[in-house]
Order: sequence, then C-alpha cells, then structure tokens
Amino acid sequence: MKIFFWLFFLLSFCLSNHVMAQSKNLNQSFAIAVHGGAGSLKTMNLSPEQEKAYKDTLALALQAGYNILKNGGTSVDAVQATINVLENSPLFNAGRGSVLTHKGTVEMDAAIMDGNTLKAGAVAGVRTIKNPISAARKILDSSKFILLSGKGAEEFATKHGLEIVDTSYFVTEFRKKQLEKIINSDTVVLDHTDTTGMILPGDNKEGDKFGTVGCVALDQFGNLAAGTSTGGLVNKKFNRIGDSPLIGCGTYANNKSCAISCTGKGEDFIRLVVAHDISSLMLYKHKSLKQASKKVIMEKLVEIGGRGGCICIDKKGNIEMPFNTEGMFRGSIDKKGKVEVMIY
Amino acid sequence: MKIFFWLFFLLSFCLSNHVMAQSKNLNQSFAIAVHGGAGSLKTMNLSPEQEKAYKDTLALALQAGYNILKNGGTSVDAVQATINVLENSPLFNAGRGSVLTHKGTVEMDAAIMDGNTLKAGAVAGVRTIKNPISAARKILDSSKFILLSGKGAEEFATKHGLEIVDTSYFVTEFRKKQLEKIINSDTVVLDHTDTTGMILPGDNKEGDKFGTVGCVALDQFGNLAAGTSTGGLVNKKFNRIGDSPLIGCGTYANNKSCAISCTGKGEDFIRLVVAHDISSLMLYKHKSLKQASKKVIMEKLVEIGGRGGCICIDKKGNIEMPFNTEGMFRGSIDKKGKVEVMIY
Repeated sequence: MKIFFWLFFLLSFCLSNHVMAQSKNLNQSFAIAVHGGAGSLKTMNLSPEQEKAYKDTLALALQAGYNILKNGGTSVDAVQATINVLENSPLFNAGRGSVLTHKGTVEMDAAIMDGNTLKAGAVAGVRTIKNPISAARKILDSSKFILLSGKGAEEFATKHGLEIVDTSYFVTEFRKKQLEKIINSDTVVLDHTDTTGMILPGDNKEGDKFGTVGCVALDQFGNLAAGTSTGGLVNKKFNRIGDSPLIGCGTYANNKSCAISCTGKGEDFIRLVVAHDISSLMLYKHKSLKQASKKVIMEKLVEIGGRGGCICIDKKGNIEMPFNTEGMFRGSIDKKGKVEVMIY
Repeated sequence: MKIFFWLFFLLSFCLSNHVMAQSKNLNQSFAIAVHGGAGSLKTMNLSPEQEKAYKDTLALALQAGYNILKNGGTSVDAVQATINVLENSPLFNAGRGSVLTHKGTVEMDAAIMDGNTLKAGAVAGVRTIKNPISAARKILDSSKFILLSGKGAEEFATKHGLEIVDTSYFVTEFRKKQLEKIINSDTVVLDHTDTTGMILPGDNKEGDKFGTVGCVALDQFGNLAAGTSTGGLVNKKFNRIGDSPLIGCGTYANNKSCAISCTGKGEDFIRLVVAHDISSLMLYKHKSLKQASKKVIMEKLVEIGGRGGCICIDKKGNIEMPFNTEGMFRGSIDKKGKVEVMIY
C-alpha cells in the first residue's frame, strides 16, 4: 500500500506543478486600445448621429479584439481582428474607406508587429487587397521578408488565399467627391474624413486632419502587439509611402517596452522614428509609458511642427493615447474591463 | 585724427568679430566613411586584382566626398557624391551593379538623411533611375513626402530632370549568370557579389553575403549626414523593400548623436530598428559611438541571428565600422586626413 501512496503523491506533485507552470504563463492583465485617426475634428462639426456611428464602430472593433484576448487568444490575433472591423467600415481611412490618390485609385499601407518575437509584416501601396492588415499578418507568419509593396504584395496575397477585390470596392461616392475638390491643387489632405458625404463642411487646410486606424494589445501571455492600416493622403502622388507600414515609425511592438500605433502627418513621424523613440525612452531612460509617449507626441513632434497622436500599451496593461490635435478617434478596454470610446 | 583712429578701431573690431563668427560656424573636424557590403567575403576568394579593383573604387568614392567636405561643402553633398561613384561602378550592388530580382529586373532602394534638419528622402523599388541616391536627395530637397516608390518615384525623378536609363543599363552579364544559378530555387542571395563573372566561386549559402553601399559624413559646419543605396537581394520577389530606404532602420542621421548606414540581411535590421537604436543608446544611455554600435551589431543583432554591419560617425568625427561577418568592404578618411580602405 505504501508504494501506491508514494506513487499517488508523486503524480499529484507533478500534476500540480504542471498546472502552476501553465497558469504562470497566463498574465492576469489583458487590455486593448484602438484609434481611427486624429486632427481638427471639431471643425468637422459631426452631428450626433455621425458621432454615434464613429463611436459605435470603434466599440465594435474593440470588442472583436477584446473577445479574442478574453478567450486566451494572442495579441497579434486581437490586433488583426480589431483592425479588420475598421477596414471593413467606410467611415475610416483604411481598407473600404480609403481615400483616393491623385489618380483616383487607392493605395493602402499596413503593418503588424509581434512584441514577443519582434517579427513583423507590412504592405505598402496595395490596391486590391480587401484587408491590408491581414496581408501584413500573413507576411509576419510565412514570409522571410517584412515589407512587400504594390503588385508584388498583391501577388503574395493572392498566392496565400487572401481576399482580393476589384478596385471599385474602395471607390465610394464620398471619397470621389473629396478628391474632386482638391485634385487640381497641389494640396494633399491628411485626413480620412473630409468635407463631403458623411460629414459636414469643415476646415480643409493641409495638415489639419489625419486618417489611419490602429490597434495595440496585451494578451494573457504577457505579449504585446501593434498594428496600423491606412489609405494615406487624399490626392497623394508618386506612390508615396507613409509611416504606417514602417516598423519603428508608425508601428512598433516590443515586450520589453510597449506596443505603439501612430496617426498623423506620416513624414514627421518618419523623421522622428516616433514609435521606436517612445520605446527607447522607456528602455534606456526608464521613462514610464505616459512620460515617454507625452515627451515624443506633445514635445518633440510639436517642435518640428508635426501633428497627430498615438495609442500605446505597456506590459502591465497601462494605456496612453496622447495627441497634439483637437481630437483623435480612440477607445480602449483596460485591464479592469472598463470600456471607453472618445473623440475629443 | 582722433576720430579716424576710433573709426579704424571700430571697423577692425566689427571685422574681426565677423571673421570669428564665420570661423565659429566652421568645425575644424570633418571626416567620411563608406561601405560596399558585408558578408563571408573570404569565401569569395578575391584575387589580388579583384581586391585592388574593389579597394580602388572605394578610395575613389571616399575622395569624391572628402573633396567636397574639404572645400567647405555639406555632408549631404559629400554623401551623395560618394554614393554616386559606387552606384556608377558595376562592382557593387547598387545602381549599375544592382542584382536581379526573380523576374530578371532590378529594383533599387535608397535613402539619404540630413542630421541637422532631420529631413530625409528615399526611394523604393525603382528600375530606371540611374542614381537612386540622387532621387532620394531630390526628394529631401523638394518634396513634402519622404518615401516614394516604384513608377511614382520614377515619375518624380523624370519631372525633376534626373537621369533615366533603359532597364538594360543595369542588366550585366555577371548579374544574369548570378540569377540563372538560383532562379528556380526559393533561395534569395543576400550578397552583391556572387560566384560568377568578376569573382571566383565561393560559398553560396543564403545569408552569407550581403550587398549595399553607404556613406556617412561630418562636415565643417558640424552637420552629419547618412545615405544608403542598394539593389537588394538576388532573386527577390513580391516587390520586397529592404531596410536601406527605411529611416531609422538602414539609414539615420541626427546631429545630436550620429549618422549611420547599414548593410546586411535587411529584415533583421528592420526588426531591431538598428540605426535608430544605435542613436538612442548614445542619446538616452550616454554610450559612446563605439559602445552603442558594438552593442547593436555585435550583440543584439547576433542574438536574433542577424548578420551584417554598419558604418557610423559622431559629431566629433569619430568613426566606427563594426560588422559581425567575415568582412565588410569599407573605408574612411578620418579627421586627421588618414585614409584607410579595408575588406576583412
């Protein structure tokens, strides 16, 4: 009998250790944040119905990612799912709602990064991929490359079974009218929302409004991820690529510091390598997420005349969403499960 | 008479102040460094004649940039002039000597950054621009964008009077043979120099050899600049963009820290945002140029299996050229005017 007792004891010990090891892998905290662009949003004069439409879609997107996190899914999956919702909405400048280039086409950029492995995937200047963030994700998972562009990226997406749509899918009446207004000027409009269609006339000055969508998340395994997707600038030319698909500029994730997605005038975010700078201030100067993100968005970016904002999350699930513009479409579900969706 | 004396005294005082102010603007130290790719160069078994050809071209390129610096020119001009020499040589994987993609074309990337203004210009995936670094420079000077790609970048270059050449200009017998060897494999070769043509058979393993050219410089005004130009990977697909044209990854310059140009497997340099990381270690952790560049190239890059090197220069004119491969084509003219050109 004694031998059975000892065998039972040994088995129980091993089992409990196994369970403990598994639960150790699960971090209690998980959280998610989203943005849908920043800018002079007050001048857009959103009606209560329009505000509600934006907020409802942001909440829907957040919930899609949060459900994945809650069920023990990964932050990379959550980021992708959240961005897919926004890409499928015509309200935001990404996927379906992308703005038009000077030539009347769309050219979309997107990137996703896994803070655990530092692996990343990105696409630039794609015109027929329904969900650019899903193509970026496929690159992260199964390519030796990181950044694919134009027709090559579309070829990769087709080969990997991603949904390809006709270019007309992206060309909405709303965006056509928006482009018509400035096509003969040398202006680019940096907003995903302009003066026609769904929203009322507003300020049209260059640099005033910016569009892009993005998401950052912390999962129960303690892993961070970030993703960004955009149609870029209205009336953009020369196959311009912005900061969104550039790792370290518009998108960055590192378990040792934080995950970040930016929105604003891309060129200024590239000049300051904004996302990696926030991460570096945390890693090397031991700044908190709040201090680091405020320093870069509210001081350094302002110094060079850069406008926009970012969402970021650290390994403890702290969320910051600084912006130096009038408003930023944004929302979060924090580690306590508290849901917030805001514009101004 | 007294009044003349005082007038003379006043004039002398003003003049000497003016001269002092001018010389104050001139930093006594100026220096330049160049690279032409890194990798398992020993396995290339370069003949003495081949070694001489590489070294002579590097020295010629260095001298082109150094002359500009010596005559009071800017670091941005020096970087461009040096890289132009290497782009015009068939020896290096940039411009004329660019490797071929899977489709037998060239797709070149380049970037240039001004450490004084943090302004930058870059092109990705261009096929007909004779000197991609000159297009990047034109973007830096006269575009509101930073990164232009493909046909759009070529349109911009044409509009601005840059030299456009037929795609056949880039397709040398040497590169055709190089591609033929691996076109039916799923391999990419990361070197600008392979096993045919000018150089003898060597090790052909993926990841062993890398090609790119780059330059960093400090001018007499104390301003830093960095530039990189490349044909990317042999047999690359899907319009892949590497780290060279990405600000913060393969190219970065900031007067407050240093100027950097990288060479190696681009994807690993993107994952670590290598150039901006070196700069951040100096700015935020007060590391020296030597400590910061060694930390990133010899430790952090090695940890993720990344191979390659970089050249960098700080505001005092110190130069570092770390690499974790067998060799790196490189050279420098330091602040004392000492010329060095090395391979291993």
